[in-house]
Amino acid sequence: MATYELVKAKAQAAKQAAAKLAVTSTAVKNAALLAMAAALEAQQSEILAANERDMTAAAAKGMKSSMLDRLKLTAERISGMADGLRQVAGLADPVGNVIDGKTLPNGLHITKIRVPLGVIGIIYEARPNVTADAAGLCLKSGNAVILKGGSEAMESNKTVAAILAQAAEGAGIPADSIQFIDTSDRQAVQDLIHMNGLVDVVIPRGGAGLIQAVVRNASVPVIETGAGVCHTYVDKDADVEMAMKIAFNAKVQRPSVCNAMETLLVHKDIADKFLPMMLMMYNSSAVEICGDEAVQEYSGQVHPVTEEDWSTEYGDLRLSVKIVDSIEEAMAHIAKYGTGHSECIVTNNYQAAQLFQYTVDAAAVYVNASTRFTDGNEFGFGAEIGISTQKLHARGPMALPELTSTKYLINGNGQVRK
Amino acid sequence: MATYELVKAKAQAAKQAAAKLAVTSTAVKNAALLAMAAALEAQQSEILAANERDMTAAAAKGMKSSMLDRLKLTAERISGMADGLRQVAGLADPVGNVIDGKTLPNGLHITKIRVPLGVIGIIYEARPNVTADAAGLCLKSGNAVILKGGSEAMESNKTVAAILAQAAEGAGIPADSIQFIDTSDRQAVQDLIHMNGLVDVVIPRGGAGLIQAVVRNASVPVIETGAGVCHTYVDKDADVEMAMKIAFNAKVQRPSVCNAMETLLVHKDIADKFLPMMLMMYNSSAVEICGDEAVQEYSGQVHPVTEEDWSTEYGDLRLSVKIVDSIEEAMAHIAKYGTGHSECIVTNNYQAAQLFQYTVDAAAVYVNASTRFTDGNEFGFGAEIGISTQKLHARGPMALPELTSTKYLINGNGQVRK
Repeated sequence: MATYELVKAKAQAAKQAAAKLAVTSTAVKNAALLAMAAALEAQQSEILAANERDMTAAAAKGMKSSMLDRLKLTAERISGMADGLRQVAGLADPVGNVIDGKTLPNGLHITKIRVPLGVIGIIYEARPNVTADAAGLCLKSGNAVILKGGSEAMESNKTVAAILAQAAEGAGIPADSIQFIDTSDRQAVQDLIHMNGLVDVVIPRGGAGLIQAVVRNASVPVIETGAGVCHTYVDKDADVEMAMKIAFNAKVQRPSVCNAMETLLVHKDIADKFLPMMLMMYNSSAVEICGDEAVQEYSGQVHPVTEEDWSTEYGDLRLSVKIVDSIEEAMAHIAKYGTGHSECIVTNNYQAAQLFQYTVDAAAVYVNASTRFTDGNEFGFGAEIGISTQKLHARGPMALPELTSTKYLINGNGQVRK
Repeated sequence: MATYELVKAKAQAAKQAAAKLAVTSTAVKNAALLAMAAALEAQQSEILAANERDMTAAAAKGMKSSMLDRLKLTAERISGMADGLRQVAGLADPVGNVIDGKTLPNGLHITKIRVPLGVIGIIYEARPNVTADAAGLCLKSGNAVILKGGSEAMESNKTVAAILAQAAEGAGIPADSIQFIDTSDRQAVQDLIHMNGLVDVVIPRGGAGLIQAVVRNASVPVIETGAGVCHTYVDKDADVEMAMKIAFNAKVQRPSVCNAMETLLVHKDIADKFLPMMLMMYNSSAVEICGDEAVQEYSGQVHPVTEEDWSTEYGDLRLSVKIVDSIEEAMAHIAKYGTGHSECIVTNNYQAAQLFQYTVDAAAVYVNASTRFTDGNEFGFGAEIGISTQKLHARGPMALPELTSTKYLINGNGQVRK
């Protein structure tokens, strides 16, 4: 079958499934999630064998070791996927939640309730765990899902998706609710993001290249996720010790993730007290520093910073540092180079905290805490499908409620418009 | 200036204005809205003169009279625009509203607040009143707006936009918060819908052609509005008198709008009691009826219905009628041909009402009331920028809260991630 027909057939099947899944009870959905978890563990050897095929092919193509590590599945990682599904089973079902309502002067009762979005396309790269995570969250929120994983993980993803789909159907979930696009033809992504009328939203998960390609080309609505050039601004009125703890954590604790800091902004009046010790701490953890001339004066190991550095998400033990004259300069820098993900001010000054928090335009704006907390689990949402960096529909960690739409129920007794 | 540079310059100016407008107080915004209303009335003769130029040009081009009527401004219509702005001044400001929040186990306080979307592009057709309506709603919700009206109304729109922008700035609104694209080059729309990074959302308002062209081509997020193929299903357990009242109102009261009914579905068991009288009522109001063979048996004046009719938004005194064997057939018809706008069941059967309301996938699902109520004013929202028929971000009438995004404020005392 040609790729377009393949994708269209899956989208049509998903749309039909979505209509039934939207009215499937929470009890059935939870039972299915537990069955899916059990199936992953029961069929572990099948998944590991498929993953071995992916790993062999990737190694033969010369994939670098950090990427190979992302691709690799182990018994422990499969258990982690299963536990994730069990966790989602334990979360509250958003479908049917009443979020607003009133009685109009003419006696009409209006109720606004949460309903599934319908069909969600997930386009992702190397990590096979996304297959299980996305399938679980979409199912719990009553959405059919069409999964399009990276070609390097084709065998692993295909196997995981097939096990999940079979277990879900066995537990009473409508057939075709979990779809996997089993072609490596790159055209499949193009087809999927143009399935208006069949696909309600596409969520790309992966590197900036993938996400921008989807955002730029899709005619289906897209939720943009992930890009994080996050800043920490150490104000002149910061507690120096607290600032060091936060700035260290935001960069070093897990540098590869999107809520890690990429740029440290330091007020000139606190630089003497803060920077020498901070740079030593970074040095002791092998963090490479790029800085402007003022920063270079504090250490011989600071590389000159380039214009490109300010807007680069290193995702690594590398940090840009800038000394600023004022909070306004810090906020202007963030407005210019930030991606609207997570931004932090460290200060004990009430007015500075208020100004920063209400002015800076980002999904999460922190006072005196590490940007690393921007995460569905940390925020207490239980799980997330990604972190939205756009303003439409959802912003910040997207959990189950963000995978729903709403509808109005209007109940009357013969009202007509005058 | 080339069109691309013109649009980009306006978008850049709007983005800068948006940052300031986002933190402009409600008091200043309300004063500006009242000043804008007063200015429209004070400079009425200027607006009427500009409109006269548009009308003359349009008449010379042979524009048909219904379109000329949409284009025409009168002293009364200008007062209507001014009253609309005064009404928006009286609505609650959504910016800063706290919509969720909690304290995490680690002591972090999280607050989710409403913030403006940023820069909103409005692409619209002939009605010049959209210029004032959209500018007012965007301003009140703290958003900079870029207006791109139809070329037939260029003189009217340009004049209205200039008066509004001047009055707003005079009342303390940041310059460039209200932008108007004063070129008739069609490329301007293409440029506007690809201004990622500068424009946060585009809302097309107008006919299906315009809306689909924007949805299909934009890389900026779009909110799809307006297309309404709305159904009324008269169940076998309907109150016949109520059903006639509702089905008449839904079609006849104002056929040109998107929440008017286009297709009437009638259960076969009630057709004998309901249809003969209903068809006479329609006939007395000059409603042209298209129907299947079963419907044609009830009147000699029924035209044969075509497949295309079922998915056509007539916007006129024309109606498709179908007799169905069951509520399931009615719902399947709606799922196939509906646009997800407004759907109604007339019934006194509890189970039928529940089934219809929870199963039918549309922005507004009615029991025993006319679909004509789907409207921001009727729902008590005060005003609307359009009716969303997509599932992402907003669904149904979009009022001020739907013109906002959210952000998380996180307040700590040194918390770092473990």
